[in-house]
Amino acid sequence: MNINSSYTQEMVSMRRSIHQKPETGWTEFRTTALVVRRLKELGFEVKMGKAIVNTDFVMGRYDSEVKLGMQRALQAGITQEEIDATEGYTGAVGIWKTGKPGPVTAIRYDMDALYVPETTNPEHIPNKKGFASQYPGVMHACGHDCHTAIGLSVAHWIADHKDELCGTIKLIFQPAEEGTRGACSIAESGIVDDVNFLFASHIGNKPRLGEVTVTEPGYNATVKFDVHFEGKPAHSVANPQDGRNALMAACHTVVMAGSLPRHGSGLTTVSCGKINAGEMRNVVPTHATLQMEVRGSTNELCDYIYSQVCRAVKANAEAFDVKYDIVKVGQALTMNPDKELAEVIKECASEVVGPENVSYFKETGGSEDVTFLMTRVQNHGGQAAHFYYGSDDTGPHRSDFDPDDEKSMPVGFTIQTKLLLKKNGIH
Amino acid sequence: MNINSSYTQEMVSMRRSIHQKPETGWTEFRTTALVVRRLKELGFEVKMGKAIVNTDFVMGRYDSEVKLGMQRALQAGITQEEIDATEGYTGAVGIWKTGKPGPVTAIRYDMDALYVPETTNPEHIPNKKGFASQYPGVMHACGHDCHTAIGLSVAHWIADHKDELCGTIKLIFQPAEEGTRGACSIAESGIVDDVNFLFASHIGNKPRLGEVTVTEPGYNATVKFDVHFEGKPAHSVANPQDGRNALMAACHTVVMAGSLPRHGSGLTTVSCGKINAGEMRNVVPTHATLQMEVRGSTNELCDYIYSQVCRAVKANAEAFDVKYDIVKVGQALTMNPDKELAEVIKECASEVVGPENVSYFKETGGSEDVTFLMTRVQNHGGQAAHFYYGSDDTGPHRSDFDPDDEKSMPVGFTIQTKLLLKKNGIH
Amino acid sequence: MNINSSYTQEMVSMRRSIHQKPETGWTEFRTTALVVRRLKELGFEVKMGKAIVNTDFVMGRYDSEVKLGMQRALQAGITQEEIDATEGYTGAVGIWKTGKPGPVTAIRYDMDALYVPETTNPEHIPNKKGFASQYPGVMHACGHDCHTAIGLSVAHWIADHKDELCGTIKLIFQPAEEGTRGACSIAESGIVDDVNFLFASHIGNKPRLGEVTVTEPGYNATVKFDVHFEGKPAHSVANPQDGRNALMAACHTVVMAGSLPRHGSGLTTVSCGKINAGEMRNVVPTHATLQMEVRGSTNELCDYIYSQVCRAVKANAEAFDVKYDIVKVGQALTMNPDKELAEVIKECASEVVGPENVSYFKETGGSEDVTFLMTRVQNHGGQAAHFYYGSDDTGPHRSDFDPDDEKSMPVGFTIQTKLLLKKNGIH
Amino acid sequence: MNINSSYTQEMVSMRRSIHQKPETGWTEFRTTALVVRRLKELGFEVKMGKAIVNTDFVMGRYDSEVKLGMQRALQAGITQEEIDATEGYTGAVGIWKTGKPGPVTAIRYDMDALYVPETTNPEHIPNKKGFASQYPGVMHACGHDCHTAIGLSVAHWIADHKDELCGTIKLIFQPAEEGTRGACSIAESGIVDDVNFLFASHIGNKPRLGEVTVTEPGYNATVKFDVHFEGKPAHSVANPQDGRNALMAACHTVVMAGSLPRHGSGLTTVSCGKINAGEMRNVVPTHATLQMEVRGSTNELCDYIYSQVCRAVKANAEAFDVKYDIVKVGQALTMNPDKELAEVIKECASEVVGPENVSYFKETGGSEDVTFLMTRVQNHGGQAAHFYYGSDDTGPHRSDFDPDDEKSMPVGFTIQTKLLLKKNGIH
Repeated sequence: MNINSSYTQEMVSMRRSIHQKPETGWTEFRTTALVVRRLKELGFEVKMGKAIVNTDFVMGRYDSEVKLGMQRALQAGITQEEIDATEGYTGAVGIWKTGKPGPVTAIRYDMDALYVPETTNPEHIPNKKGFASQYPGVMHACGHDCHTAIGLSVAHWIADHKDELCGTIKLIFQPAEEGTRGACSIAESGIVDDVNFLFASHIGNKPRLGEVTVTEPGYNATVKFDVHFEGKPAHSVANPQDGRNALMAACHTVVMAGSLPRHGSGLTTVSCGKINAGEMRNVVPTHATLQMEVRGSTNELCDYIYSQVCRAVKANAEAFDVKYDIVKVGQALTMNPDKELAEVIKECASEVVGPENVSYFKETGGSEDVTFLMTRVQNHGGQAAHFYYGSDDTGPHRSDFDPDDEKSMPVGFTIQTKLLLKKNGIH
Repeated sequence: MNINSSYTQEMVSMRRSIHQKPETGWTEFRTTALVVRRLKELGFEVKMGKAIVNTDFVMGRYDSEVKLGMQRALQAGITQEEIDATEGYTGAVGIWKTGKPGPVTAIRYDMDALYVPETTNPEHIPNKKGFASQYPGVMHACGHDCHTAIGLSVAHWIADHKDELCGTIKLIFQPAEEGTRGACSIAESGIVDDVNFLFASHIGNKPRLGEVTVTEPGYNATVKFDVHFEGKPAHSVANPQDGRNALMAACHTVVMAGSLPRHGSGLTTVSCGKINAGEMRNVVPTHATLQMEVRGSTNELCDYIYSQVCRAVKANAEAFDVKYDIVKVGQALTMNPDKELAEVIKECASEVVGPENVSYFKETGGSEDVTFLMTRVQNHGGQAAHFYYGSDDTGPHRSDFDPDDEKSMPVGFTIQTKLLLKKNGIH
Repeated sequence: MNINSSYTQEMVSMRRSIHQKPETGWTEFRTTALVVRRLKELGFEVKMGKAIVNTDFVMGRYDSEVKLGMQRALQAGITQEEIDATEGYTGAVGIWKTGKPGPVTAIRYDMDALYVPETTNPEHIPNKKGFASQYPGVMHACGHDCHTAIGLSVAHWIADHKDELCGTIKLIFQPAEEGTRGACSIAESGIVDDVNFLFASHIGNKPRLGEVTVTEPGYNATVKFDVHFEGKPAHSVANPQDGRNALMAACHTVVMAGSLPRHGSGLTTVSCGKINAGEMRNVVPTHATLQMEVRGSTNELCDYIYSQVCRAVKANAEAFDVKYDIVKVGQALTMNPDKELAEVIKECASEVVGPENVSYFKETGGSEDVTFLMTRVQNHGGQAAHFYYGSDDTGPHRSDFDPDDEKSMPVGFTIQTKLLLKKNGIH
Repeated sequence: MNINSSYTQEMVSMRRSIHQKPETGWTEFRTTALVVRRLKELGFEVKMGKAIVNTDFVMGRYDSEVKLGMQRALQAGITQEEIDATEGYTGAVGIWKTGKPGPVTAIRYDMDALYVPETTNPEHIPNKKGFASQYPGVMHACGHDCHTAIGLSVAHWIADHKDELCGTIKLIFQPAEEGTRGACSIAESGIVDDVNFLFASHIGNKPRLGEVTVTEPGYNATVKFDVHFEGKPAHSVANPQDGRNALMAACHTVVMAGSLPRHGSGLTTVSCGKINAGEMRNVVPTHATLQMEVRGSTNELCDYIYSQVCRAVKANAEAFDVKYDIVKVGQALTMNPDKELAEVIKECASEVVGPENVSYFKETGGSEDVTFLMTRVQNHGGQAAHFYYGSDDTGPHRSDFDPDDEKSMPVGFTIQTKLLLKKNGIH
């Protein structure tokens, strides 16, 4: 393995700083501020707020969480000016214009943490080395801290190698990937509309440390949504006819969801992960909320099953004469990486970990919202591709998730710099 | 007991003739013909067909049954002319105008049989005496054969006593009381719009032979209805998305019916007695039919719960994108007999069976569609009341139901003639 | 109205003290301590804790609430010794033995508050006079503060009139009437097993200020219960077969509850007032809880419908292979006051408010757990009866509920003392 | 195309004779008799009845249909002796023992027709040429008439070419393939336990006339089953508590079926194609029947989802306190043809229709019960494979289905004889 290690120390240090103060989707105010400071320091043009987030397409952003996130960021030393600069919407895009003709290449980095409490096991490296999460119940359990840190070192590398580069490079620091909530609004801002090549990558998953997998077409399309029913209270026994039962509408929706016709041409799934409904034992329940999601093995199948569920929601609201609201809180498309660009990744990765450690891999189960950015790029004729660089900890979303930051991150970093050289290098 | 027995023999004979050839609701062509022949013979003015049936309000009448009924009647010796005279709608009203001033009094008699096969037990009187049903699967298991026979003897009595009577008397031979299908259309014909006093009665039920109960306010209002769903076929596994599943709409409707809010101010019930849906095991079911009924302890409660079910049907049709149709096939109102007229019945009945054998009785469970006639009369200021004259066989709708026709019928007959004398007698 | 007003001031003062520090069911540690202090001061024998609470029959008591209640009581000046004396179970019974032969008469007083936030409307008397609830979200919104205060003044009156009394008098200060949780355990302690006459009463409801209603047989029997399902997590799309879906079991139970056969001989209702199920959007839901209740117009009907629901819960747990637990959290029986004793109440009340202001009243909708005490007394041959003394605020369980404590309480007090004189007075 | 046409005329004639008198599954008494007569005539050893049908594994066989089938066969000229020879179980196996060492090779032919009424369109060839179905509502709409006819001509060819053959050849004429009901019982008889090579094929489907597809691993496993619930009648309003509602158990089962967890590793489907439940509108429904089927993309997945449904049936029966019975009426496994044997088919087919007209094809949607025979052969070390020979009418199960019998059948015939020569020819 041929790792360019000169940037490793700063990556590790930045990653641990971010790991200590994990911020969930749409609350990454400190992370954004750290990113913006560093990008500016390095000489990048920086775009933020509504310039890179089309607020019409924001999903799963809750005012109470955002407010709490701002408070925490202030307490963590971020200034009010830095927070104001976000216009309330986290994320940042660093743009490096070489001034020389050449393609526009973008790399996406996600920044958000999860509502997972970090383990207290003293053997857990973040505990051992003293950089475990300081925010109870929140943790970088999917490696986005690593992604962000790598992105800033790639920025450093760009500044260091500016004379070897042509065209334009965009480093996209995206909020709220978890729950597939953020990328759609970034895509809809138009920020990738001039991009010729888009790369995205993830630490861990299938490949072990020292392995790389290049992603084949796959992933399920998904819509994550909340269903709210609002009825009217009344005494359940004395005058139920005056009530409007939101709980019943909700339970019948859950039950009906499984009776809706699947599609013969692929996978369509509906799940309800959570229901909260009702107020008191003997009062007709007035409020109900379902947390649901649909998935499809194609975007069309996902749309199909989503429309089926929406119709069932409406029908059950009508049956029980209650109001309803369906709120999309996350969405992702299927991924169709361009073969040609995937092959470029394979070449670069082979240079880093050896060709015997690089393979193609088809993801079937999960979802990734970078698919919105990829699709946007592809729709105007650009290319997009995706890869995983391995870690010995392959199971994200666990309280003891820990990729080896000193060994895994350099692999991702080096492949990305090679990709930039391949597409924007002056040969 | 003071029974006027001179009419008994003809009543018994007529009842047994009708019992042998039982005709279900809207197919009483032979029974109607026998009634019409006799009424005319006695000098009554007779109204039939659309003159007494408002076809817009006919419920639960099926062409195939009607056709079969006509064929049977022809085979039983009724002429085509007699059938044609019905205009396809069974039932008849005999009108006796005395020409002398006086009130208009009406008595209702129902004529239809049930889809109940008569027992083959040789001890069953109709078997013993050779007048059991000749039509397999059909039986006069609720005594309407007795009612009709009594009505004709009352007609005879009127003719015999014409000089003692004033005003006008209407004898209403109503079709399709079972399933509460016929009375509404009779009421809506306007035939009782000039009636001052309406009497209705039933053989058996609570009182034993020699007892009479006068009916207090009660009975449930009911709507009986069929729900039809129509979808679209497709292969259940290969392309379910192209189908529209009528069976699912039907099953979810049944399941949802129990979740609809009852009313706090009284009884509301929903039942589904029958479901038939689907065509083949692996085809998306295209047709579905539910046989349902609702009941309420008031007309308003019945309307309330019916409207709830209708909304649920519509919602489930929408959920599964199928067409639907709700067809009322029967209906009855609650019964609110006039106290004053009920007291008249009590007096007359006391003269017949002795005051110690007459009591008031509140019917709670069942339904009776004479309530439409009663309500119509009451709405224009007339009075209506109802009673039971006992039988030792109190359980109708059984295959071995058998009131003692030689002893029970004379009681009903005599009370009715006394009621006529009380209201239309020349004192 | 002939009100004995010498006790009014202490009643009002005590009621307001209790109103300021409302304690919900099973947390009435301060209220109990106030009661016990006073009873002892007056010379009553006092029984507490497990002597009057059979813990096998305690319902709806939650450790976390109890702990919080103890903390609040300590902060409110109650000593640890006073709390320890309860053995964790609130409530107290004051016993006055005259030493003279005579019957045992008991009066029941309930003490608990509700989770209802008191209105901030400055016109609300407790706000105006400065005795509104000091505990956010908790309020004496059903008048049990008045009941307890009256009980202590009745105790005072007994001590004052000891020479005019014979037999034994038991004043039962019962915890947790709301949700019908406490009385069963009191009854099962045996504390009323020697009682000849039991009186219970309530402020407000139907009668206005200056009116009294004597309760006729009525009230619904009820069981209040929580249903818990416990499944197993798994990813909803990747390996749902490894999960066990508690949410589905819960929703199907709710839906099925309406399909269970009602009983033909009276009212049977099932309600689900609240459901909480599931953890995360894309994880098979592992925990589910339903808050349900059944009611029946007789104890038998209540048992019937409860057993139906229990069977449905079990079946749905089996269908989805999850564990389940059904926890009774409240229960009440129908009320069958003794006519003779009710007539005694009527007489005494007539002396207080005038016969024209006293009437019989049949409660149909609600539930009262004093029925357990009444039934226990009646089962061994004693008599029990119940009445309401009016208030101009008839709508309890509202955040602005406020009976006129200076006028309503004296009516209740005076009737109760008259009842004691009638049964235990030396004539 | 190199078609050996000397057998064509007899095939066409036999096929049309069978087409005229189509017999549904387990009623193929005439077809069996024709097969047996011919096989014996040609010198085959013939096995029938319980020798080739293990009655413990018979599915979807109904006495009333069998009886009717026997009557029709008698009317069509089959003798009672021929019918008796079946022992009530249709089907026959012709065995040709060459006496020379060599493998045992078997070919499966299915014989049953469908409940599809044949079109009356005069352009439909069977109408034009006068060989349309004479049995109303029944039709050979899936080409099994062709299969049987080909099988008898293959038998003829064997007899004609006996000197060129070695080893043993078994021609299996299987009943009841439709609904996948018959093959399991044939397999369980042990009749293929000595078979080294098993071939199966079907006319039409994907390939056009002159094309052949060789079947790749695929097909869904399926279980087809009827669910019966039996409750107890009672009046729906008067005493529903005395009833046991079979309709409710059925509807809740249908509704619950969609809520059962799918399996993450492949396709699992549940369908309910038909429901019949209940007797009368106002009677608690006593009988209910569901026609259901499950499918899985592997045998394990099929078993998985079937066990889920069975548990749900049991649970719903318990919830409504009704009896239940689950009757398997059909079953098929997934198909895993041996690659080596498939390649042999490809070679032989290429010789007949040219290599450019032969391809591999993966069937995903349907089911075939020859999979039981194939699996049995494979389980003891034999090989099995399957192919389709084309027709211009590719849509079976239609009332106007009509493969070109003069052109399609010879292709199938010739490939089969080539396969026999390949495996049992003396080279």
